[in-house]
Amino acid sequence: MTTLGIIGGGQLGRMLALAALPLGVQCRFLAGPDEAPIQPFATRFAADDLIEVDRFARGCTAVTAEFEAIELATLQRVDAFAPLRPGAAALLAKQDRIVERNLLTTLQLPQPRWAAATANTLASACAEIGYPCRVKVARGGYDGRGQWRLRSPNDLVEVPPGTAPWVVEEEIRFEHEFSLIASRSLGSTEFWPATFNEHRDGILTRSVAAAGLLSATAAARAQDMVSKLLTHLDYCGTLAVEFFRLGDQVLINEFAPRVHNSGHWTIEGAVTSQFENHVRAVLHWPLGSSQLRSTTRLWNVLGEWPKRSDLLAIAGIKVHDYGKAPRPNRKIGHLCLTEVEPNDPRIAAVDRLLHLPTLHLPTLS
Amino acid sequence: MTTLGIIGGGQLGRMLALAALPLGVQCRFLAGPDEAPIQPFATRFAADDLIEVDRFARGCTAVTAEFEAIELATLQRVDAFAPLRPGAAALLAKQDRIVERNLLTTLQLPQPRWAAATANTLASACAEIGYPCRVKVARGGYDGRGQWRLRSPNDLVEVPPGTAPWVVEEEIRFEHEFSLIASRSLGSTEFWPATFNEHRDGILTRSVAAAGLLSATAAARAQDMVSKLLTHLDYCGTLAVEFFRLGDQVLINEFAPRVHNSGHWTIEGAVTSQFENHVRAVLHWPLGSSQLRSTTRLWNVLGEWPKRSDLLAIAGIKVHDYGKAPRPNRKIGHLCLTEVEPNDPRIAAVDRLLHLPTLHLPTLS
Repeated sequence: MTTLGIIGGGQLGRMLALAALPLGVQCRFLAGPDEAPIQPFATRFAADDLIEVDRFARGCTAVTAEFEAIELATLQRVDAFAPLRPGAAALLAKQDRIVERNLLTTLQLPQPRWAAATANTLASACAEIGYPCRVKVARGGYDGRGQWRLRSPNDLVEVPPGTAPWVVEEEIRFEHEFSLIASRSLGSTEFWPATFNEHRDGILTRSVAAAGLLSATAAARAQDMVSKLLTHLDYCGTLAVEFFRLGDQVLINEFAPRVHNSGHWTIEGAVTSQFENHVRAVLHWPLGSSQLRSTTRLWNVLGEWPKRSDLLAIAGIKVHDYGKAPRPNRKIGHLCLTEVEPNDPRIAAVDRLLHLPTLHLPTLS
Repeated sequence: MTTLGIIGGGQLGRMLALAALPLGVQCRFLAGPDEAPIQPFATRFAADDLIEVDRFARGCTAVTAEFEAIELATLQRVDAFAPLRPGAAALLAKQDRIVERNLLTTLQLPQPRWAAATANTLASACAEIGYPCRVKVARGGYDGRGQWRLRSPNDLVEVPPGTAPWVVEEEIRFEHEFSLIASRSLGSTEFWPATFNEHRDGILTRSVAAAGLLSATAAARAQDMVSKLLTHLDYCGTLAVEFFRLGDQVLINEFAPRVHNSGHWTIEGAVTSQFENHVRAVLHWPLGSSQLRSTTRLWNVLGEWPKRSDLLAIAGIKVHDYGKAPRPNRKIGHLCLTEVEPNDPRIAAVDRLLHLPTLHLPTLS
C-alpha cells in the first residue's frame, strides 16, 4: 500500500488527497484539529506533538507539505522516517523572503531590485531602492498581508517596527502577472502553459489558461528560469513561480515549493492536474501530460458563496468548495470553466455573481 | 451544511464521495466495516444495526444507494428521517428481475421475450421461450454470476434448483451492446451520449464513448425508452439502461437505478460526470451539462494491476484504483483515455497491459 503523508490540512491538502485517492494512494495528514478542508478524511495526526509527528511519518512512502511555514524540528523529524519531497531546502528557502531573494540572486534570475532591511536600516534600504517601493515581511506574509506600499519617506511610519526584518523591493509597473507551474521528478519535467493572473488587494482573484497568452520569447525566458530553479534545488514535486511581465521582459516575483492557487484550473483544464503530478512526482512515478485541454478560466471565491443553485445553473461550471467557514476575503473555494469561447456569456455570468468587473486579457502584438 | 448519506461502501460510493466533496457536500456511509473503497473517509455507520441506520439517516439532506440489494426495513428506516433518492420503488424494482421485467412489460418497452420460472416450471418456461435461452436468478446475480446459457433441455440440470426463482430470457444475437445513462431531477434530464460496451464472461471489460457510435434512429429510440422509465418512476438521480442493438432495433437488457460502470468514462470524458450529476440530482440542485468533451475509452481492471509505472507511462492515462484487494475477476479499478484518435497507439498499449485483444467498434452504415 502506497501512503502519502501530507503536512497541512488546508484546501491544498484536500485537493492533493482528492487527486491521490484515484491513484490508489492512501493519504494521512499532519494538521491541527480544526482544519475544516480535511475533515472528510479518516487519518489525521496532531501537528503539535512530536510523538504524533513520528507516528505520522512512519510508514509513509513519501511526505509532502501543502504550506511552507513548518518548523525545522518537524521537518527533521519527518525526514528521519520518510523522504520529504520537495526537500527541506526548498521549503526553508520559501520560509524567508530574504533567503528566497538571495537564492534568485545566486542563480542570476531576473527579479525586481531588492534589499534586506531591519528596523535600523529600513529608511536607508528604501532610499537605496527608491520610492515608490514595497516593504514585505521576511516571514509569515501571505495573500497581500504583511506588505506595505511606500510612496515616500513619509510613509515609513506605516510599517510596524515589530514586523521586521523585511525585504524592500522596487515597485514594478508590470503590464501583466502570470505564473508558470511545473512538476519535476527524477529529472523529467512537465510545464503547464503560462497562467495569466489577476490579483486584487494582493489576493489572487482570477486566472486564465489559454494557448498564446504569452509571446514565445517571454514563455521561453520564464521556462528557462523555472528550469534553473528546479535543477538547483534538485526539485521533486510541483513548483509554482509568479512573474511580472513588461513586454518580453520577465521578472520573478516569487515562487512556491508546492501546488499553487494559480494552477487550480489544471484539474479540469489540463490532461493531468498539478495535484496529480505532484502526487506522482513525490512518489517517483512517471508524470502525466500537462497539455492544455481547452481555454480555461478560474475564479477564486472569497469571503462568501453566491447562491449554490445560481452557480450550478451556469452551464459547465465546476465548483470547488473547500468546506471552510465564510469570513471576509477568505479563500473558501474556486470556480472553473473550460472550453471558454471569446465573449463567452458564461464569463460575465460568473463575474456578476462574484461582483467582479470585466477582466482584460493581454493581447499579443 | 449539506450532508449526503450513501448506502454502500464500494467503488461507486467512493466515486460519489469524490464527486460530492468539491461541491462542498459532506458524505457519510452506511456500510460494513471491511469495505475497502471507503476506508479513506471519516464518517461511517454500521449497516447491520438499525439504531446506527437511524443515526446515519438523521441529519442527512438526502440519502442515496450505490447498490440495490438493500433490505426493505433499512430503506423504510432511512426514509423516515431523510428523503431516499432515487426512491424505494426504483430500488425494489431492481432487486428482482421478475419485477424489473414486469415493469418493462407494463411500460411496453422492447425487451427480449421472457418468462418467470420456479423449480417446477423451469422446463416449461424454457420450452416456451425456446432454446438457446438464458436462465438468470431473480435475486442477487451480478457480473454474469447466477446466469446459465441453456442450449437444449439437456442443460436444465446445470441450473441449481436452490437458486430459484428465475427469469428465462430468449437469447438475443445482438450486434452490439450499449448503455444510455441519464440524470433526472425535478423534471430536468441530462443524457450522456450512448456508450458502447464490451462484456467478457458477463463482466464489463471496455467501454467507448464517441459521437456517432449509434445511428440517430437507434439513439432516439433508446432515449425515448429511458425517458419513459424516468417519468414512470418519477426518478431522481442517475439511471443506467443497458441495451442490445440489432440494426436500428434496440431492446432493453436491464437497468440500474444508480451510477453505473459503463458511465465511469464521464469523469474525464464529459463536462459533468454521472457521479456529480447524481449528487446534484438527489440534492435537487441544477444538473450539469452531460456533453462529451472528446472521444473517450474506458477499461476495467479485473483481478490484478499491471505495474503502476508501466500504466502511468502511457500519455494521458487516468488511473482509478478502488483500493480493493486483488482477487481473480474482481473489479479493482478502471482506466480512462480521453482525446482518443483513430488508431491511437495508446489504445493498443493499454490493451497489451491488460492482455486484451483489439476491440472492434460498430461502424454506422
